[in-house]
Amino acid sequence: MSITFTNNPKLSLFIPVFYVVWEDDILTKEEFKTLNSFINDQEWLTKAEKNFLKSKIDVQSPPTRSELFRWREVIDKALQEPPKPESLTALGIVIANAERIALTVEDIEKITPVFAKLESDLGIISREVISGFRKNRDTITHNHKTIESFSVAKMSKFLDGNQADIIDKVKQIINSPEFALQDSSDTVAFREKVLQWSQILANKGLGAYAYPKAQGGKDDVEGYFTIMETLSYHDLSLVIKFGVQFGLWGMSILSLGTDKHYKKYLKDIGTLQLPGCFAMTETHHGSNVKGINTTATYNHKDKTFTIHTPEKYDRKEYIGNAANHGEMATVFAKLIIDGKDYGVNAFVVPIRNKDRTVVKGVTIEDCGRKMGLNGVDNGIIYFDNVVIPKEDMLDRFASINEDGEFESPIPSNNRRFFTMLGTLVGGRIGIPRSALAASKIGLTIAIKYGDDRKQFGPQGGNEVPILNYRMHQLRLMPYLAKSYALHFGLQYLTQRFINRSPEEMQEIEALAAGMKAYVTWNTRNALQECREACGGKGYISENRIDDLKNDTEIYTTFEGDNTVLMQLVAKNRLGEFRKEFGEMGLGTIFNYVLEQAKTTITEKNPFATRNTDEEHLKDRDFHLHAFQYREKELVSSAARRFKKLVDDGLDTFDAANVMHPHMLNLAEAYLERVFLEQFVLAIDTCDDEPLKEVLTRLYNLFALHTLEKNKAWYLEENYMEGVKTKAIRKAVSQLCWEIRQDAVPLVDAFNIPENCLAPIITFRKEEA
Amino acid sequence: MSITFTNNPKLSLFIPVFYVVWEDDILTKEEFKTLNSFINDQEWLTKAEKNFLKSKIDVQSPPTRSELFRWREVIDKALQEPPKPESLTALGIVIANAERIALTVEDIEKITPVFAKLESDLGIISREVISGFRKNRDTITHNHKTIESFSVAKMSKFLDGNQADIIDKVKQIINSPEFALQDSSDTVAFREKVLQWSQILANKGLGAYAYPKAQGGKDDVEGYFTIMETLSYHDLSLVIKFGVQFGLWGMSILSLGTDKHYKKYLKDIGTLQLPGCFAMTETHHGSNVKGINTTATYNHKDKTFTIHTPEKYDRKEYIGNAANHGEMATVFAKLIIDGKDYGVNAFVVPIRNKDRTVVKGVTIEDCGRKMGLNGVDNGIIYFDNVVIPKEDMLDRFASINEDGEFESPIPSNNRRFFTMLGTLVGGRIGIPRSALAASKIGLTIAIKYGDDRKQFGPQGGNEVPILNYRMHQLRLMPYLAKSYALHFGLQYLTQRFINRSPEEMQEIEALAAGMKAYVTWNTRNALQECREACGGKGYISENRIDDLKNDTEIYTTFEGDNTVLMQLVAKNRLGEFRKEFGEMGLGTIFNYVLEQAKTTITEKNPFATRNTDEEHLKDRDFHLHAFQYREKELVSSAARRFKKLVDDGLDTFDAANVMHPHMLNLAEAYLERVFLEQFVLAIDTCDDEPLKEVLTRLYNLFALHTLEKNKAWYLEENYMEGVKTKAIRKAVSQLCWEIRQDAVPLVDAFNIPENCLAPIITFRKEEA
Repeated sequence: MSITFTNNPKLSLFIPVFYVVWEDDILTKEEFKTLNSFINDQEWLTKAEKNFLKSKIDVQSPPTRSELFRWREVIDKALQEPPKPESLTALGIVIANAERIALTVEDIEKITPVFAKLESDLGIISREVISGFRKNRDTITHNHKTIESFSVAKMSKFLDGNQADIIDKVKQIINSPEFALQDSSDTVAFREKVLQWSQILANKGLGAYAYPKAQGGKDDVEGYFTIMETLSYHDLSLVIKFGVQFGLWGMSILSLGTDKHYKKYLKDIGTLQLPGCFAMTETHHGSNVKGINTTATYNHKDKTFTIHTPEKYDRKEYIGNAANHGEMATVFAKLIIDGKDYGVNAFVVPIRNKDRTVVKGVTIEDCGRKMGLNGVDNGIIYFDNVVIPKEDMLDRFASINEDGEFESPIPSNNRRFFTMLGTLVGGRIGIPRSALAASKIGLTIAIKYGDDRKQFGPQGGNEVPILNYRMHQLRLMPYLAKSYALHFGLQYLTQRFINRSPEEMQEIEALAAGMKAYVTWNTRNALQECREACGGKGYISENRIDDLKNDTEIYTTFEGDNTVLMQLVAKNRLGEFRKEFGEMGLGTIFNYVLEQAKTTITEKNPFATRNTDEEHLKDRDFHLHAFQYREKELVSSAARRFKKLVDDGLDTFDAANVMHPHMLNLAEAYLERVFLEQFVLAIDTCDDEPLKEVLTRLYNLFALHTLEKNKAWYLEENYMEGVKTKAIRKAVSQLCWEIRQDAVPLVDAFNIPENCLAPIITFRKEEA
Repeated sequence: MSITFTNNPKLSLFIPVFYVVWEDDILTKEEFKTLNSFINDQEWLTKAEKNFLKSKIDVQSPPTRSELFRWREVIDKALQEPPKPESLTALGIVIANAERIALTVEDIEKITPVFAKLESDLGIISREVISGFRKNRDTITHNHKTIESFSVAKMSKFLDGNQADIIDKVKQIINSPEFALQDSSDTVAFREKVLQWSQILANKGLGAYAYPKAQGGKDDVEGYFTIMETLSYHDLSLVIKFGVQFGLWGMSILSLGTDKHYKKYLKDIGTLQLPGCFAMTETHHGSNVKGINTTATYNHKDKTFTIHTPEKYDRKEYIGNAANHGEMATVFAKLIIDGKDYGVNAFVVPIRNKDRTVVKGVTIEDCGRKMGLNGVDNGIIYFDNVVIPKEDMLDRFASINEDGEFESPIPSNNRRFFTMLGTLVGGRIGIPRSALAASKIGLTIAIKYGDDRKQFGPQGGNEVPILNYRMHQLRLMPYLAKSYALHFGLQYLTQRFINRSPEEMQEIEALAAGMKAYVTWNTRNALQECREACGGKGYISENRIDDLKNDTEIYTTFEGDNTVLMQLVAKNRLGEFRKEFGEMGLGTIFNYVLEQAKTTITEKNPFATRNTDEEHLKDRDFHLHAFQYREKELVSSAARRFKKLVDDGLDTFDAANVMHPHMLNLAEAYLERVFLEQFVLAIDTCDDEPLKEVLTRLYNLFALHTLEKNKAWYLEENYMEGVKTKAIRKAVSQLCWEIRQDAVPLVDAFNIPENCLAPIITFRKEEA
């Protein structure tokens, strides 16, 4: 009788091991050596048996496909037998015992440790292999899923607050059939569609919302911001067109003009009877608005101004509403009287007639195709000695008196300039709120898609929703937490702006500039992750991430380049720092700072720097302390470094240049501290327990994820040790895992209108 | 006589300080208190003089605009006097002495320290203020500029190497008038234009470059990659269309088919007479190709296969060339013989007739508008029992014999599947090379723009090229360094692939997968920075970053989702690790790892962890040790963590899930080590000293910037202390500052054809 596996239980013992080593068709030299010497060493095998077994590990003659298949059938059968074998050796014993001649108990006792060593020598992890063999394999990763732990409706209500009515009104409009989203590739058609949409909104009174009641408005600036934000669920070209017309153009009249201008223009602006532009930026003076070169020269004789573009690149550029629709523009120009420069002032200048022809002396070019926002007609404007009446100087902050002399309640050009710009800070509130809404759409799409889309799974198991993968969670959950954090932060900013006093303006301007930068960068990053998280589907335009991403791409540049804004924020913070120490001289300040540096060593007590208790990591006081510490230390070290660089002989401008990256970190630390504080305050106003719990999870993720992002700094400063930052990393991963269960209800709570979402989510429903 | 400044030198002393405190129109309470008590304290002032001075710091009655203006005139005049005053006090003295009655030397000696204290108490940094007053202020930041320290032509030659001829040929073609770049917004027109371009390239013999000479090719795979890369300077839709037709479609025939297929199809593919597709991905099986469900059922009777899409979402999706032009497709399907599944195999299936009508049984949908690559006609394909002859199975790795039985030299379905995929690894070389070229265009545009574009400057100074700002350098210079590092890395990958032996395939596959992911993510990030660095100009489509960014957006997803690829790389690295320790059992390995962990403590000797010498920071051995340490430690800690998780009772699939982020880091560390090594090897082959020097600067920046990116990890591991990571940050900033001088020549060395660049650079020339 020839030797076979089936008539010899001793040989059957080898089947699982042989199957595993041959499964990938490659028997490595090491595997061969290990098996060969193992076989040689077994005294309980005959020479013939040994030769048979060796014939099965011959690289020149590997087992055939059908032999491998038979081995697998034997294994699958054995796996059904109770008690389920947990190792390859146990599995081999079951297989052996199924043969005609069973192994004795003594055999088994002898064989088990010997085979266990073989497995170990071969580098086989039995549990892994056995799990792989099993059908319908059940894992924690599989079973994780959406759980609605709180009322979605209550969360929406909590987020909307006192703005619920106007939010609902706008959502109804943008969810109507006439607001069905349009393809943006045909620029001409798309611009006209966006104009039509704007007209509908104006007709419903939404354009004039912030204007005085006398001019058909509701005097409701907060409502205006809410409209901008809610419209952002729809189409961002519409939002920007709306913002240019009713915000920039209308608000420049309201903020820089006086009653005569309101009466003359504001009503027609609010109804879109008078489309207009905000013409500030010049080609060669983008971020540096103080450097603009357009001139407004006063003519004593007939009491007029001549508006002029002196050189080609002093032209106004990127001006929204200019290429097709604008009829007038608020033009920023240097006021010249008798050859003397009185700094930047604002003037209302006609650019286009009712029949859309361009006014004499004005030349308009189309900026052409852009990455996004192609529903907005950006243009370039040149003025060739265009004459306007004296009344059309916007004269709230400066005017020409009857004698042709310059008058202003603010003598310094510089100061007046910044006061004028300050009144326009609203734009830096509307933009981040719009940006946040855009990221909420992206997250809604990516999270719902990830909850449904299944890919991969364990051997022998079903495919798993991709949102159950830790890496996928780590890509999306922190942005979900941030979208809540930033929501409350922007509400705070809005309230500060609405209820501002003149003394607070500088602080509010810095806050707005900083939040504009922080939030728009966050949107850029969040939408990038959302696109990638949706794979190929994210690349198809109908799934919306295309337009969301490309439209918001410019948010980081317009209304102030983010990097420049962050420098402003940092300067403001250093100024506040100087103010705080106003009573001390500079030298004293630096001594104080050094003293403080010493005392903070004690704040960083060894216990805290190494404390990894969950309770501590989720302690609000720990978070606040860490955030504040970073902010304070970055401010005082900026002051120290700056002083040192200047003391070392650098020009202050060069020293400031060296400090740029430090200043950016400083601004970021300030903003993160504000977001943290506002998140806590928001949670404390919530009186629904399940809401509070999920908000606290989000808060913890926001806090710890931010600390993790900045962990290199904390380690450098010895504020934390490696053991603690590692614990934070683990806590972040665990929070992502937990929040994944809340993720779908949390995006449902944004309550984004159905027709503003993507077919990949509708498709999801269709299948369900 | 009433008291005035002009008739009293003591009072004139105050002019500079008064000007500074009033310049911003706000006299803070602290400033008032400080000045007021200072004035009170000065015994050398009469009561009347004190009252006069106090009247100038009255918040109720600030100085008029013309008074401020007069003060400024006096200051400006005094600044002209030699010796130039360096403090406000000195300035005040010059002003005082210009009056009719000069101060005595004794007065000056007495006054100087007193005023110095006042300045300090007011928090005024004199040097800063004085610099601000000066006209034509000269700073280091101003004077920094482009210096050509090396021969651009020699650098281009060094980069092109032995591929210079084919590179020049392709550049000539894409710089010709018929290849003028097209607007991509009209999808229909754009797709046809891209097809025409492809035809021109095919006519010039570029399509068949990699094919056997017998089929009209040059048998030159390296040249084919070079063509792909060089075409990427032009239009990426063209690159992908080209890659789909001649790469995916043609190479699938070459790699998976046999001689009969070459003869039948390859010549027509190379000339674009036979446009075709590569139909692998299915809607529900994107990254998980093993899970595809399309079936190819063998019909014994007539020796044919029936190709069929069983369920809606088993359709082939995102298939390039499918929507409009493809006539045949390599279709991946599960082979079924007699009801038994023999795994995924490839078949050639007709989908469209010569008149562009669709073949019976085939349904094709258009994927529609995408974020980018709209010149590629991606489509969705359904098969309804389409019958093809037996010969059209691509039978290099598996076939049906005369008896209708399955035959394969590779028995395992799994192994055969991966072998098939392995032959297609070329796509993962072409894509990162194309991505790198795209980022080179972006960098060329952003760097040349930044070298020319001026914004801001010190008070009293000219505006400064934005590339002279440290923050701007920090955003662009590391990507410039990386573009060189990745260039050499991809050349290495190409050489490994060209000269591969079968044993190396697994390693090369991992290397290609990893570089594809690393390089395409880098392109994503680099182009993002380039867009923002160009501000509004970067948003205008004609300046190219629009299309570059949107076209390459999908590079991170297609040819394998990057996150999935990085997991594969990490698994391969762990496998290599296991192999290395093949002779030891698993237990031994873990003991060894623990031992090693102990010994590495000594590697991290206290001197090295704190060493901040420039020589050390720029030491190749230090870099290599740090990169290798990170790689090794991440591999061995992955093994440890995985074992621990499984020991703690987690299913291996769940344990692998927890490990995802760790695995990504591991893969990244491996790739960075390879890039580092290849950069060093490349520099060592260079025999031109100036080239070597600039390459070394780039290398140092790449090495230190990468270490800085990973610094949190090094700090956590105590491999470096804070003092060292801070020194690295400074060194990075300094290297960016230095390389800024080389930046324009370094991008010029990419030698990108004129008509593939952006108007903002042409516009730059126009002005110069």
